[in-house]
This record gives sequence, C-alpha cells and structure tokens, in this order.
Amino acid sequence: MENLRKDAETIARAAIAAVMPDEAVKRALEGMVRPSGRLVLVAVGKAAWQMAKAATNVVKPDSGIVITKYDHVMGELPNIECREAGHPIPDVNSFDATARALDIVGGLGAGDCVLFLLSGGGSALFESPLISEEELKDITKQLLASGADIVEMNTVRKRLSAVKGGRFALACKPARIYSIVLSDILGDPLDMIASGPACPDSSTSEDAFAIVEKYGLRLSDEALRLLGEETPKALDNVTTVINGSVRELCRAAEQKCRELGYETVFLSDRICCEAADAGSFLAAIARSHAGKGRKAAFVAGGETLVHVRGTGLGGRNQEIALSAATLLDGLNAAVFSVGSDGTDGPTDAAGGYADGETLGRLKEKGLDAEKYLANNDAYHALKAVDSLIITEPTGTNVNDLSVVLVAE
Amino acid sequence: MENLRKDAETIARAAIAAVMPDEAVKRALEGMVRPSGRLVLVAVGKAAWQMAKAATNVVKPDSGIVITKYDHVMGELPNIECREAGHPIPDVNSFDATARALDIVGGLGAGDCVLFLLSGGGSALFESPLISEEELKDITKQLLASGADIVEMNTVRKRLSAVKGGRFALACKPARIYSIVLSDILGDPLDMIASGPACPDSSTSEDAFAIVEKYGLRLSDEALRLLGEETPKALDNVTTVINGSVRELCRAAEQKCRELGYETVFLSDRICCEAADAGSFLAAIARSHAGKGRKAAFVAGGETLVHVRGTGLGGRNQEIALSAATLLDGLNAAVFSVGSDGTDGPTDAAGGYADGETLGRLKEKGLDAEKYLANNDAYHALKAVDSLIITEPTGTNVNDLSVVLVAE
Repeated sequence: MENLRKDAETIARAAIAAVMPDEAVKRALEGMVRPSGRLVLVAVGKAAWQMAKAATNVVKPDSGIVITKYDHVMGELPNIECREAGHPIPDVNSFDATARALDIVGGLGAGDCVLFLLSGGGSALFESPLISEEELKDITKQLLASGADIVEMNTVRKRLSAVKGGRFALACKPARIYSIVLSDILGDPLDMIASGPACPDSSTSEDAFAIVEKYGLRLSDEALRLLGEETPKALDNVTTVINGSVRELCRAAEQKCRELGYETVFLSDRICCEAADAGSFLAAIARSHAGKGRKAAFVAGGETLVHVRGTGLGGRNQEIALSAATLLDGLNAAVFSVGSDGTDGPTDAAGGYADGETLGRLKEKGLDAEKYLANNDAYHALKAVDSLIITEPTGTNVNDLSVVLVAE
Repeated sequence: MENLRKDAETIARAAIAAVMPDEAVKRALEGMVRPSGRLVLVAVGKAAWQMAKAATNVVKPDSGIVITKYDHVMGELPNIECREAGHPIPDVNSFDATARALDIVGGLGAGDCVLFLLSGGGSALFESPLISEEELKDITKQLLASGADIVEMNTVRKRLSAVKGGRFALACKPARIYSIVLSDILGDPLDMIASGPACPDSSTSEDAFAIVEKYGLRLSDEALRLLGEETPKALDNVTTVINGSVRELCRAAEQKCRELGYETVFLSDRICCEAADAGSFLAAIARSHAGKGRKAAFVAGGETLVHVRGTGLGGRNQEIALSAATLLDGLNAAVFSVGSDGTDGPTDAAGGYADGETLGRLKEKGLDAEKYLANNDAYHALKAVDSLIITEPTGTNVNDLSVVLVAE
C-alpha cells in the first residue's frame, strides 16, 4: 500500500504541475505566429497575473493590461498595466479597467496581434456595460428572481455589454487575437468562460426577446434596443487555444501513470455526479480489477457535486476517497481524488486517498466511514488516518482529478 | 442512432441468454466428473426447477429433489421429486422438503455424487431447524429488532440449522458434491447465497456468542448449546462452480460488443452506487469518448440503488438510462441498462435506453427528464419516447448490465 500512496502523490503533483498557468501558457505560446506589427497583451481572470507573467517570460509585449481580483497582482510586469477589480460582482474598477483595455486595442492595425489570456472569473472582471450600472444590476436581479437559467441570463446580458459575446474580438479588429484560455468549466464551452469576449455567440436577439417575454422582465427602451443588436456569429480574426483544461489534467495523470508502469484507461473528463457515488463507482472498478496480476490505472476528471446534509468539514474530492474506502477494503488497490486548485471545499487539503487498509484503520480508531460521510465530514475521518492529500493552494483551477490504482 | 439502438437490444439479449439457468448449468456441467456410483440431484432456490430441467437434459440422476417457490414447478422431471415451499419466510413445506433432501443424501457412499444446484431464495426454501420453529421465529424477530446486520444474523442462524453454513455438505459425506451456483449477490460470497449449505463457514461460535451478548438476545439452553457447536471451516468433498453470475453477464456482453465491432473496456461487475449517479457517470464516459472516430463500448454490471423520493413508476435500470440522457444530448453515443430478470422495478420493462437524441425527443413531447427522474418516474418518460427495453421475465436473476456504446 505504501507504493500506491507514493504513486498517488506523484501522479497528483505531476498532473497539477501540467495545468499550472505558467506551464499551460508556455505550451500554448509555442503555436503563436509572431506579429509583423505590435504585440498587445490583455489578461483577464483570477489567474491573469500568473498567465501574463508566464507570457512575458516568452514574448515581449509592446503594451498591455492585466485585470484580476483584488490582492492577485504579485508584482510589476514590463510594459503591462496591472489592475485589480471586483469579483464575483463587477465594480467601478472592473468597468474602468475594461474601458482601458478597449482603449489599448482600439488603435491596432492589421499587422498587430492581441495576446488575450483568459481564466475563470472573467465575467465580473471584464465588463463594460452599454447601459447604466444601476439598470444592469436591476436586470440581473430580475433575472435571478425569475428563475432563469445561466444560459438565459447570459443571452440577455451579453447584449448589454461592449465586450461579452464576441464583441471584444470585434473591438480588436483589424488586429488578430491569439487567445489562450485556462478553462474551469467542464467541456470547455468557450462562450461561457468569461461570457466569451473573443468567441462567436450562438444566441440570437430573438432568443433574448423571448426570455424578456417569458419572465416578464422590465427593461428601459435603450436596453430593449440593445437586445435587438446582434452579437457576432463568426469571428475571422481569432485563434483560440484551450489549455490547462481538465482534459489536460487527465492527460498528464495518464502519462505519469504509464511512466510508473500502470496500464492506463482514460474514463472521462466530464464526471459530474454526486461525489460519494463517483467514489463508489471508482471503487467498484478497483474491486473488479484488483488481484488480477495487472498494474492498472483508471483516470477520470470533472467536477462532482456534494449535496450537503451534514455539518462536518470536507470537500468533493475527500468525499470521493472516503466513499471509496468501504468497497476498497482488503484490496491491493487505491482511489484518490484531488482538486487542481489545492483547496478541496473549505479545507487545507487538495483531496483524499483511500486504499484497501483505510477502512480497517478507521475502524481501529473507532471511526465509522458511513457516519462521517453522512455528516459531510470526510476531512476529519481522512485526517485521522493520515489520508489527506495536501498540496497548498496551487494558483490554478481546472477542476478535479480522480484515479483508481490497482497494484500488480 | 438506429444502429446503436439495434446493437443495444442485441447485446442485452445475448448477455441475458448467457446467464439463463439452462445455459449456465449446461456450461458448468462440462466440468463435472461422472461418478462411479450413484448420481443424486438436489436443486434449491427460485431457479431450481429450470436448473434441474437443464441438468436432466445432460445427465441422468438416479434420484433427486427440487425445492422451489410456490408455482415454480413447471412439470415432472425423470426420477426427481418436485417440491414447492415458502419464500421468503420458510414454512412447513420448506422443512419437510429439506428433511427429504437430507434423507436422499443420507445413505450415499464414497463413489456417489450429489449434483447440488443452488440459486437465490435458498435461505428460506432450504432449512431444517435444530430448534423449534417457534423459537427460530422468535430469535429471528429479536435479531431484526436489535438492528443486527445480515452477517450477524447469519452467524447466529447458521448454527441453529442442520443444512446451513456447510452442514449440508457434511451430511452428504462420504459422497462428493458438485455444486453449481447461480449467483444473485454481488461479488458471489458463497457463504451468503442460501446461507452456504455446501460452503465452509468463516464465522465462529465465539462470534455467535458475542452477538448474543451485544444485543442481549434471549435464547433457550438448547439454542445456546447449538451456538457452541462449530460449523465446518473446510470441506474436502465439494467442488463449486459459480455460474450465471453478473461477471458472466458482463463477459457475454463484452463478447457481443466485440462481435459488433466495438473496442471494449470492462469497467466493473460491482457497481452499487445510486442509479441516477451511475447513469451520469456512464454518460460522462460517453461524452469524453464520442466523436473520436472509434467505436467503443464500456461494460459495467452490478446492482445500483434507488432512494425513492417520488411517486412515479420505474426501476434502477430505467433511472440509469433516463439520467444518462441529459449528458448524452447531441452525442452519437448511447447508454443502456437492463436487469437480467427482465423486470426492472415493478414494471414490464427490463430496463432503458438513451442516446444523443433522447433528450430532444423528450423535450418535443414536453417532458422534463430531470422532473421525471426526481419523481422516480423513469418508466413513463422512457415509454413516451419508445426507449424502454422489453424482454419479458427471463427466469434468471444475476443483477444488472449497463453499457456505454460510442459510435464511430
């Protein structure tokens, strides 16, 4: 079991390293054609400063701007203005910084290029409303109260923004955009990440009016006029590289598993069921493959759910591990799960680990795995048997990695 | 999608056919060494008559007995007494028939062989209590009221029985036993199937006394004396073939998938999480493998759970399919799930099917998959879009098969 535990730590660390903003940006920049004219950098999101820092180690922008959360600027960057702004609610600093970004890209020519670095949190940080802040807030409130889903909310709000729904890409014209996206949404729907500033919009004005009618929204004449203005359905000046996605996290884990001698099966990067049930499913895989004389790894990624019923401490990755412990009992096999951000739920652990001895060790300490799980208290159960995986906050967030390891 | 649907039906039928009592018994009998002396058949369980029927097509027992549920004897069998008895509560016919079985095997010699055919339901049908029926009932009641788990209950009850916990095998000595087991318990724990009449017992008298003390059970002096009599820890006259298990069901499905041109991955035969979450997990696998130019199948088996919260009609296999429909939307891929008994929950369907068009077809009919799932009403949703898999009751029960199919 000691080897399995060591392998789990090695695989988790290698996978997370591969999706750190630095690595992701460095890899993605290999594909960028250097412009004949100016290179301008616009970095938006929670990882904007790290992404910009990594980029400026490789390329030398002529000018640029970083827009990130408060306390997320870690130092000066050459030729780059660093701004901090409100998240998750946009504030006046969001609007000012975004207006400045539009300024910077406003005067570019056909030979110029915008290096656009996008990470999670961009919807709030990168915003330039076409209506008053008050009305935008009011419409958002009406949408929230109406029960509209996130797609419906975005369909309306994109049309009230100067940068969302592909409009930032239009503002950069005739310059090209090379966009590097650090994805934290399963399946990488580009138009959802930061509401898609450089992504063609699939929704229509007709859709937007239908939503207004469906929920009886009250809008000013100006807002209604804006809903009628179509967003771009195609963009010919944008190249997008999605990087540091959960798929990347899984791929890096698979590679490390193979290096460690495991026959590797990639299951999915879209796991989104209840965490405890995902743990049970993964342990069931271990149960059917353990003791067959083959060293095997099954790799899954995604973002599971926890329906909180208890009052304990934990996170979805820790619940996966603790839930797996019961079915793993007695096997020469393990299940581990980690969040790539290094903070699983409100805890100091990235995730958890369980193998064929975990249940026994819990019992020795008088701990009932089922009870801890029912109380959403995986943290304390796993901590008691030294089965937390701790990485410190990593500065990236591309969701979670869950792996089944079966020893020979 | 038409091909996926056709393949799903083909795979489901082929897998179930492979675990029908007839097939399972026929295959298992290939390994039996014919005795120099007499051959006696003892068939116990819900599938006892079918198993005996299949056996008598291959071998000619000199004598024997079938003990099955009421209305489960389908005709006369040569040289075999067919008895029906109480299930799930043993009755006087259970005790009489079991006493008769002990009679039949009582006079056998070293060259003789007992062909012992065991299927689910044997715990009640095959019972010969060493204490009065009244006290057995009273102890069972006390155990149920105490909150003892099934392992604890069996540890006590095995010692109060003349046939359970390996004692039937002792009664057959010096004859050999060739035991064919049709398993309906995940992981095939032989000592749990019908309380293991021909299986060494791992529990001890010490364990039994500890349970009496733990729950403060009130037992007669005679019952207490019986708890002190040890069950056999090894049996040298028994050969056991587990057949028609859920593993067999998966294996047959895998083979048919390969015949149909799918690259096949066996996931597990031990899936036991919530059905809807298993469906989501399977669909997540489809989502990550669809559209990659490879025809792939992922095969899983087990017995999922449904925590009933609604008032609708359905079963765990139908919930798996309906739950998968959302994530499958738009994919050239399918998830189907069937119960090998052909009756999923209290319905006339064996299970359900969903592919990339199912959600759209539900929406066209104004049906909300999530709502039907929340109301445990998968049957009506799937029926409305012709996505039930119907096989009729099959006469076997080795749990469920769930398969992900990804088109090229």
